[in-house]
Amino acid sequence: MKIVMIGEAATHRDEIADQLDFKAEFAALPREAHESDAWDRQIDGADVLVAMRFQRRGAPPRFRLLHAPGAGLDGIDFAALPPGCTVCNVFEHEIPMAEYTLACMLDHEIGLGAARASFDNRRWSQSYLERKPRGELNGKTVVVIGFGRIGQAVAARARAFGLEVVAISSRAMDGKVEGPADRAFTPRQLNEVLPHADYVVLCCPLNDATRDSFGAPQFSAMSRDAVLINIARAAIVNEQALYSALSDQRIAGAYLDVWYRYPAGGGEAVPPSFYDFAALPNAFCTPHISGWTQGLFARRYAFIAGNITRQRNGEPLLNVVHDGRQATSRP
Amino acid sequence: MKIVMIGEAATHRDEIADQLDFKAEFAALPREAHESDAWDRQIDGADVLVAMRFQRRGAPPRFRLLHAPGAGLDGIDFAALPPGCTVCNVFEHEIPMAEYTLACMLDHEIGLGAARASFDNRRWSQSYLERKPRGELNGKTVVVIGFGRIGQAVAARARAFGLEVVAISSRAMDGKVEGPADRAFTPRQLNEVLPHADYVVLCCPLNDATRDSFGAPQFSAMSRDAVLINIARAAIVNEQALYSALSDQRIAGAYLDVWYRYPAGGGEAVPPSFYDFAALPNAFCTPHISGWTQGLFARRYAFIAGNITRQRNGEPLLNVVHDGRQATSRP
Repeated sequence: MKIVMIGEAATHRDEIADQLDFKAEFAALPREAHESDAWDRQIDGADVLVAMRFQRRGAPPRFRLLHAPGAGLDGIDFAALPPGCTVCNVFEHEIPMAEYTLACMLDHEIGLGAARASFDNRRWSQSYLERKPRGELNGKTVVVIGFGRIGQAVAARARAFGLEVVAISSRAMDGKVEGPADRAFTPRQLNEVLPHADYVVLCCPLNDATRDSFGAPQFSAMSRDAVLINIARAAIVNEQALYSALSDQRIAGAYLDVWYRYPAGGGEAVPPSFYDFAALPNAFCTPHISGWTQGLFARRYAFIAGNITRQRNGEPLLNVVHDGRQATSRP
Repeated sequence: MKIVMIGEAATHRDEIADQLDFKAEFAALPREAHESDAWDRQIDGADVLVAMRFQRRGAPPRFRLLHAPGAGLDGIDFAALPPGCTVCNVFEHEIPMAEYTLACMLDHEIGLGAARASFDNRRWSQSYLERKPRGELNGKTVVVIGFGRIGQAVAARARAFGLEVVAISSRAMDGKVEGPADRAFTPRQLNEVLPHADYVVLCCPLNDATRDSFGAPQFSAMSRDAVLINIARAAIVNEQALYSALSDQRIAGAYLDVWYRYPAGGGEAVPPSFYDFAALPNAFCTPHISGWTQGLFARRYAFIAGNITRQRNGEPLLNVVHDGRQATSRP
């Protein structure tokens, strides 16, 4: 069994090796091996290639399984894969992203940070006697836009707090959808639903249908007390409309974890947005941390080890996105 | 129907009146009427007295139902009640207290406040590229000490996050207890359970058995990575042992919402503790806010209005703690 790992994935070799009950040969290649054929002799004949990207111009090296260590497939050129190669991906980020989302909602209701800042031994008596009643999640309504793994993980936790969950999903039919939602509507019905939301959570993929799909009309439809949480992709929300909605206090606030511009690496410095969101008191800005946990990597590489074991035993693989026995082009 | 309300309760008259489908006569009395007979002519003949306390030395005025607008009964002298008077109480604080508790747990794993503080347009690229993976609640273990309404409300929400819930309850038998717990043990077994806890949440009442019951032996039994959350009463935890455990970093941290000394009112200023907990970086101190919400009052007075309607219709009351038809002394 030969396992080749490229780029950041190669730092997780032990997390796979520890889960296998047999010895395997590992090779670690630099991130350039995603696109360059300079390391193809080391890849050739691999049972498993663990890599987030794969691009080739000429004939590819041979490998049987390309396992992405994440969910996104936009770095893989399916036409460039060797014949018969199967592709699997892995999720697990829905757990930390849902935890992040509920943390934001609870932060808005409770304001733990402000409560802590108000507390010291000298001010205690005054801050106790002058406490103002705060809000609760219980009984409020959350509109979850996009009801895949992430949206459903948010919804399951939200329901435990007594929130009403309204799903926006292209799979909605007759007000219902599979999964933990009280009601469901299609994206075309979004503007009718938004006025009832206390929280709006963006969990949908970025594609031609969703790009720039949340703008001034949607902010106008929202209640002035409502809060937007974006853990999906910044470009779903119109940048200027978001800044106006917050600076004009058209909505109560936003928790923003995804941004309009990212550094490509190597010391590059770009601003996250044309606007200075962090200077707005009702914008809560975080540096794309919603899915970034130790547990994420542990679960992902344990899942990949499970699939490697299945391949060795001739058992059906999980999370197959491209079955090499049935197709040779993009699914 | 005559309804008399005393003290802070009297400010919630409309929250009862709006829920009744009949007209009632209301009277609002100052907080001194809890203990003084100076307003007894106005109380006499009331159908309902809404008050957190009731003390009398001489013959009490007559009323049929004493409805406390909270859970605690320690302000009521049951021997001083008029004959045949029934007493009811009301809860509902388990909802905000459970929300507060999960907010603390998520704060510890995610550190939203620090993530926000690290974010600005100039530092964005660096803070994004240097993100450190954070923790998750998923898969961790919470030990809930006291498994009444509050403990069970914490547990139900914790389970939605994939936490293992271990209940400490005097009702535990053979490792089980009624309610949303994976395992359950008696208070005598606490020290055996504590080493397995990532979170320890105090939800038990303060009484002779629990006072000063959490001290140096319990902190020694806890993991160095574990976190204590106290939403019950400060005096359950030994003040000096708590300060030592935090300042010596014997445990990872504590979320403290309840305190050792409270102001009696009227401008009195007392420190919350002999120690300066707020100066410790691993002590997260808040001024007894866990149950203090707008929703709490709305639910409590709606519940009281429901009981008033039941009494008018001759239906059985809910949350009866003292049945005036069966007893004339404390239950």
